[in-house]
Amino acid sequence: MHSNDGFRELGRQECLGLLAKVSVGRIVYTRQALPAVLPVNFCLDDDGAVLLRTCAASELARAVDGSVVAFEADEVDAVARAGWSVVVTGRAAVVNDPAEHEHLNRVVPCSWAPSPVEVFVRVEPELVTGRELVGGRTLYGVRLSG
Amino acid sequence: MHSNDGFRELGRQECLGLLAKVSVGRIVYTRQALPAVLPVNFCLDDDGAVLLRTCAASELARAVDGSVVAFEADEVDAVARAGWSVVVTGRAAVVNDPAEHEHLNRVVPCSWAPSPVEVFVRVEPELVTGRELVGGRTLYGVRLSG
Repeated sequence: MHSNDGFRELGRQECLGLLAKVSVGRIVYTRQALPAVLPVNFCLDDDGAVLLRTCAASELARAVDGSVVAFEADEVDAVARAGWSVVVTGRAAVVNDPAEHEHLNRVVPCSWAPSPVEVFVRVEPELVTGRELVGGRTLYGVRLSG
Repeated sequence: MHSNDGFRELGRQECLGLLAKVSVGRIVYTRQALPAVLPVNFCLDDDGAVLLRTCAASELARAVDGSVVAFEADEVDAVARAGWSVVVTGRAAVVNDPAEHEHLNRVVPCSWAPSPVEVFVRVEPELVTGRELVGGRTLYGVRLSG
């Protein structure tokens, strides 16, 4: 769908395809009633859920477990005014099923702050939205293939 | 300050210095009771406030005016497990003072979705926090100069 504001709305599958190409995103949650945002590395599960690994005792694990969060990734070329951004919104949960841990331990990238006791967090892909910047006042007439 | 989790906490001036080096960040706010996040280009005011330009009729302008938001920027090298992130948390407001508009029109970068009627949004730098990833399991022993 093309809007008239220089952005093209992306479909769910386009969004998940873009997310699969990058390894760093940002989890958005609430901390002490204030908005909080933290870059993390991640991967996608087969169903589009966002998977990440963190310290079991981390503030992040405590804050997001059971809450609706947003997870964002983007690639933006500020000079060319081109790029894309994707947001997954859904309930986050610490994965407590030991049967899943072996699988997740293989596929989910290591935390940047390794800890002896790590947990996995899954963000359900209840709402997957994204947009591509296509109509900005480009300086060089190029845009990301993104 | 060095923590023992692989991150170094950054001071306010370090954070503002890093923010001044980049042109794209992400504004985090609440939309219909859900967390929302949107990449935008921006600049810093002399006092560290985040300044951005958007369409007067945009959902963003309506949603953030008068609310506490977070504004995040980062540079992360996922392979080297190195980088930094900075978050400015504070009240956002649409600037209504006509006397400020001329100045802001000169210094604030153009919106990616230009509109005939644009407004400026200022995020007060009430809380400025950041961290540098310094102790990850680096693969190449390098880290961003940040």
